[in-house]
Amino acid sequence: MPSFDPTPADQFSFGLWTVGNVGRDPFGDPTRPALNPDDSVRKLGEIGAWGVNLHDNDLVPFDASAGERDRIVTSFQKACADNGVVVPMCTTNLFGHPVFKDGAYTSNDPKVRAFALQKTMAGIDLAVELGAEIYVFWGGREGTEADACRDPQVAIQRMREAMNYLTSYVKDQGYTMTFALEAKPNEPRSDIYLSTTGHMLHFITTLDDADMVGVNPEVAHENMAGLSFVHGVAQAMEAGKLAHIDLNAQKGPRYDQDLRFGSEGLKEAFLLVRLLEGTAGNARYTGPRHFDAHAYRTEDQAGVWDFARGCMRTYKILQARAQAFDADPEVKAILAEQSCETADPLLGSYTSEKAAELSATSFDVDGIAKRGLRYEHLDQLMIEHLLGARS
Amino acid sequence: MPSFDPTPADQFSFGLWTVGNVGRDPFGDPTRPALNPDDSVRKLGEIGAWGVNLHDNDLVPFDASAGERDRIVTSFQKACADNGVVVPMCTTNLFGHPVFKDGAYTSNDPKVRAFALQKTMAGIDLAVELGAEIYVFWGGREGTEADACRDPQVAIQRMREAMNYLTSYVKDQGYTMTFALEAKPNEPRSDIYLSTTGHMLHFITTLDDADMVGVNPEVAHENMAGLSFVHGVAQAMEAGKLAHIDLNAQKGPRYDQDLRFGSEGLKEAFLLVRLLEGTAGNARYTGPRHFDAHAYRTEDQAGVWDFARGCMRTYKILQARAQAFDADPEVKAILAEQSCETADPLLGSYTSEKAAELSATSFDVDGIAKRGLRYEHLDQLMIEHLLGARS
Amino acid sequence: MPSFDPTPADQFSFGLWTVGNVGRDPFGDPTRPALNPDDSVRKLGEIGAWGVNLHDNDLVPFDASAGERDRIVTSFQKACADNGVVVPMCTTNLFGHPVFKDGAYTSNDPKVRAFALQKTMAGIDLAVELGAEIYVFWGGREGTEADACRDPQVAIQRMREAMNYLTSYVKDQGYTMTFALEAKPNEPRSDIYLSTTGHMLHFITTLDDADMVGVNPEVAHENMAGLSFVHGVAQAMEAGKLAHIDLNAQKGPRYDQDLRFGSEGLKEAFLLVRLLEGTAGNARYTGPRHFDAHAYRTEDQAGVWDFARGCMRTYKILQARAQAFDADPEVKAILAEQSCETADPLLGSYTSEKAAELSATSFDVDGIAKRGLRYEHLDQLMIEHLLGARS
Amino acid sequence: MPSFDPTPADQFSFGLWTVGNVGRDPFGDPTRPALNPDDSVRKLGEIGAWGVNLHDNDLVPFDASAGERDRIVTSFQKACADNGVVVPMCTTNLFGHPVFKDGAYTSNDPKVRAFALQKTMAGIDLAVELGAEIYVFWGGREGTEADACRDPQVAIQRMREAMNYLTSYVKDQGYTMTFALEAKPNEPRSDIYLSTTGHMLHFITTLDDADMVGVNPEVAHENMAGLSFVHGVAQAMEAGKLAHIDLNAQKGPRYDQDLRFGSEGLKEAFLLVRLLEGTAGNARYTGPRHFDAHAYRTEDQAGVWDFARGCMRTYKILQARAQAFDADPEVKAILAEQSCETADPLLGSYTSEKAAELSATSFDVDGIAKRGLRYEHLDQLMIEHLLGARS
Repeated sequence: MPSFDPTPADQFSFGLWTVGNVGRDPFGDPTRPALNPDDSVRKLGEIGAWGVNLHDNDLVPFDASAGERDRIVTSFQKACADNGVVVPMCTTNLFGHPVFKDGAYTSNDPKVRAFALQKTMAGIDLAVELGAEIYVFWGGREGTEADACRDPQVAIQRMREAMNYLTSYVKDQGYTMTFALEAKPNEPRSDIYLSTTGHMLHFITTLDDADMVGVNPEVAHENMAGLSFVHGVAQAMEAGKLAHIDLNAQKGPRYDQDLRFGSEGLKEAFLLVRLLEGTAGNARYTGPRHFDAHAYRTEDQAGVWDFARGCMRTYKILQARAQAFDADPEVKAILAEQSCETADPLLGSYTSEKAAELSATSFDVDGIAKRGLRYEHLDQLMIEHLLGARS
Repeated sequence: MPSFDPTPADQFSFGLWTVGNVGRDPFGDPTRPALNPDDSVRKLGEIGAWGVNLHDNDLVPFDASAGERDRIVTSFQKACADNGVVVPMCTTNLFGHPVFKDGAYTSNDPKVRAFALQKTMAGIDLAVELGAEIYVFWGGREGTEADACRDPQVAIQRMREAMNYLTSYVKDQGYTMTFALEAKPNEPRSDIYLSTTGHMLHFITTLDDADMVGVNPEVAHENMAGLSFVHGVAQAMEAGKLAHIDLNAQKGPRYDQDLRFGSEGLKEAFLLVRLLEGTAGNARYTGPRHFDAHAYRTEDQAGVWDFARGCMRTYKILQARAQAFDADPEVKAILAEQSCETADPLLGSYTSEKAAELSATSFDVDGIAKRGLRYEHLDQLMIEHLLGARS
Repeated sequence: MPSFDPTPADQFSFGLWTVGNVGRDPFGDPTRPALNPDDSVRKLGEIGAWGVNLHDNDLVPFDASAGERDRIVTSFQKACADNGVVVPMCTTNLFGHPVFKDGAYTSNDPKVRAFALQKTMAGIDLAVELGAEIYVFWGGREGTEADACRDPQVAIQRMREAMNYLTSYVKDQGYTMTFALEAKPNEPRSDIYLSTTGHMLHFITTLDDADMVGVNPEVAHENMAGLSFVHGVAQAMEAGKLAHIDLNAQKGPRYDQDLRFGSEGLKEAFLLVRLLEGTAGNARYTGPRHFDAHAYRTEDQAGVWDFARGCMRTYKILQARAQAFDADPEVKAILAEQSCETADPLLGSYTSEKAAELSATSFDVDGIAKRGLRYEHLDQLMIEHLLGARS
Repeated sequence: MPSFDPTPADQFSFGLWTVGNVGRDPFGDPTRPALNPDDSVRKLGEIGAWGVNLHDNDLVPFDASAGERDRIVTSFQKACADNGVVVPMCTTNLFGHPVFKDGAYTSNDPKVRAFALQKTMAGIDLAVELGAEIYVFWGGREGTEADACRDPQVAIQRMREAMNYLTSYVKDQGYTMTFALEAKPNEPRSDIYLSTTGHMLHFITTLDDADMVGVNPEVAHENMAGLSFVHGVAQAMEAGKLAHIDLNAQKGPRYDQDLRFGSEGLKEAFLLVRLLEGTAGNARYTGPRHFDAHAYRTEDQAGVWDFARGCMRTYKILQARAQAFDADPEVKAILAEQSCETADPLLGSYTSEKAAELSATSFDVDGIAKRGLRYEHLDQLMIEHLLGARS
């Protein structure tokens, strides 16, 4: 049995809000006390995590004075340095305060939109101070219950205006930073604009500085829409737009669960790790592996760290399983047989001549149709690798 | 690595309609030819299946004459005997013919209801002839698109009338037979009456011969409603009502997929096998393990048998994993600590005295609340056993 | 245009927790201040509500002394009397305090189970003091994330033990009271035991005092499972088990939304009101119409009362639409043609003679199948009535 | 009561496959005979439809000879001319024949990919001959069950290669034609690539001739993923990419239902018609309103035309309701109050000076947060307009 212990090369990161989650939910009060950010970092270092991420207000309270802010930041930087933990990503809390109850960048109230920009600029400054080069945007409040309140086209235009403003700010300050936009279909709003990674990828193409902006897909969010997370991530990777990733688990369309990575949807988790690690031969994703999840509400502090260790450990087990699957000669044989990539002279770029030839070609469609593709066997081999049942 | 080959003791069965599925779907024509029932049985014997199940019309065509019927049945019985395959369960096709387009037992047309009874009685006779002691009822057409067409209370009354009629028929004929009712929330109807195993369990309690009737839960059907299949099966087992079970896989709320058992939802499949096999100490389910699934449409005949072997093999791997999990001392320790079953003198049956004492008791609720339950660790242990990553 | 103003005969009720909801959610802080129970009652009286419902801790804080409790209760009773508002239903908060983090009646900790009983007995006493004759049980914490923690059969047994204890308590005290059990598939637990109204109806049949216990179905909860709420309610009504009902709205399988009644799912809301009011000729439901919903987080106090008025107003509009639909001669004609209820001599109770005759009967199945059922037209008529587009 | 009869200006169209649907489903045989295309057109003309759409094989059988094809096309053109029905849109059937069992443009078999191109080119030629200027692509088979069979990035690349080839073909032939890509999350494949309108919009931006390509969103397909259809359509409109639209109804995440437009999801249908018609002041969508739905399986031919009339009639009722809603002074007052569009000097395009000023601005966030937004009232007004209950 190989070791599945984390190493810095794995680039495993956790948000302060994940290990610091106090177990409150819509129907119940906190079940564990809040963790001090510095203590979280120390503990993350101990269990082998590489990075820690944060919302502005995870570290600096909403109402902190400038002096308090600086003291907190200095102390946190020291904690990071002492424990060998980096800050790869930061983001803005644009959802907790009631002022954002009807959106931040898309609010009907221009004062709210302005405040949201101000708060984000300050968050970006903080991120730069902490050394983060990825800045995530999750527009949890950018949506509606009463849809008539706002033309959804106007919502998109306001979102665009905000993004253009903020990339300009980053350039103006001379920062090096990639934005990572995170989609979610619903919760806490009945419907959230730009509801999936696909919608977000398109939105990015309409921005002034599209090259500075990618996506931050989250397992749970795409599963809430019943979509294939792997296909969405693949589309982002193929477009060079996977800027960050949020790993967790979710039992299909229901409330946002943020469960321990790999604790549900094991087959998709396997396919995801396989894609990110490139074990099938595709280009590997080189950014952070961020676990955006939290411990069950039944847990105390010890359980929080059980949770965090479990995320990393399952990732590494799945990585080993993916490597074994793609190295299996029987798997290779099926894929080689099925994935015939020999260039067909009729395919490729269009020319009038090729089109004419193609139009005149006769195909034995019934003959082609008869061939069995062996996908049941391929999939069964995957399940057996996943279950560790194939030596 | 142990052998995961099937044995008769496993009681693995397949429906004629599952291995005989021709790969037709709402958008496409069949991709493989129909299989002769006798050939199916021969092949099922070869791969180690114990039983074969069937709808009346899987074996005997809708319009067959009495002579044809008898010739077919005799030949099929010989094929079963020759190949050591039993027929544990039969059922009626009350959905394929257009006469059932608005239901069978619940149709507004009394002629349809009468024909449905007639067809079921003939199906029961066939079942008895083939030695089956379980008779499944899946009311796929018992539902609505235009709900105003029928008072849903009347639908339930008609369903009850049919069931009472048919248990009377079974008793009158002197047959030994258990009915197993199978729920499904939708498809092919927009909404199907008695939509889950829970609704069906209640319905059974209102029947004249409730003791002759249990349920036949299907993995895919409960997953289409996003429900825990394991909890539903457990309720049936606790009530002594698990008469049969349909094993397959489904990716959540979407069209009915009938995928290879264990090919999706691995954690739930593990929990299910653990429950059925009683590895945690509960009473084992002793009936057939029926795979109600079919091969992908991409497969030819070889793929069909890959599919069937995969169902059985994954069941046995999961069984081994469940045994190892429940034998793991660390698992046992957590469960022992959490599942304190020491009889509390205040609990148990009600008496006025105990109630008075309980009302006067003071509880240290904050103290109790603080205790961490170690469920993250317990669940992670389960995942690692499932992945074969815990030696 | 008729008046759609509420009257006491409508039996419209609201929970203290619904109009008192402060707009907190998993991602954000409260957006409006808490309402004093007495003020809520006064306002409910003003807008024409008939009843107010409550959890024990909606009125009496968790840690209140006996003296505080009595002062609060006396004041509340006066407020109810002054404003002509009754208390038809009460329930216990067995989910808010961390002590219930892993369940109340099903907790692995006997102390938690005992405390849950104690708290419920006190809640029942309070209900009796307030004149409520319906007692609701929503077991929001009775479920799991890490399913291995507890045999789900044991969970059901513990739930049964609690219910049997509590009906005994009610009888022992000489109270007149109906229990109403409320199912929910998930949230706040990953899976909640007895997940739908169907599962709950069955569970009730296994209780010692089943005749004292019915169900309290909630629109949102069944919609979270994608089930037909109307069919579930109909099954409860047909069994004489609809003890109470929670009216709200929900956009399908996602987080529990508790939206204003009729604000989503208008067709199902129409069918539901039609069923409850018996406009199609079925027996009318005579209990309270409880709106278990709350105002959007975007609202201030004025918006809360807009919300409450909207619930009642939409119910009455739908009632008028249902009456008009069922009085429409064209609708009656289609239903009369389709719902032929003439007793077929072959149907009804089983006799050997009838069965023999039925077996020998020949049916023109192709002829029967050809008849169009006019359900598209029936459903379109319903939509046009619903839209007020049919004079 | 105004007339809700269709006129050519409404641009209502139906597919041959919709009114010609024979009522077959995965569990049952056809319930009505196939309709001759020429008869469909005649009947569509009679009921007031403006256009008829078709897949190549809806009109010309898969195996037709060139002569047969020409005779069929000539006859169909005459039927269209005689009945005043146009052909606004055509598409290719790349899903029915078993040769497409593992995809068309994304198949692992280059011969299948080549044949799919050939078939599409012939379909485009047919479309041009029939006068259609919109060509729809629904890649129903472009997906997987056994995801390991193909790198999903390669699938996207193959899809792109096909689209680039085909726009080149259109340009090379001198045709005037817009492509409209239609997304669907699943069914008939377990997961379909480019699963939502959002994913498709992004994919289009990566094409050689993106300006020739838009989307064809379908109500049911986005509802299968639980997404807001209105938000998705709005994103397409805002980007100038709404090339066509498929109107129908669907009860959330389940099998693809293709129900009569407006028969489910009435509130979303209202919001959609409001958006398309621009009654709130936004730019109106000027393309066809295509009903991609079919009659219930319970219907005969008369029911098919009830269904078709119902689609158009409900659209027009909703249009009238939307106009009345947006003309309602109370609605206008709320929207005017909430949707303050006064340019805030701090907003708009970024400048260093504005950013500095914004950073230095102090916001009364608690004061802003307190304001109630009146969305409950706004939404209730919408419901009452929808129900025809507001004079």
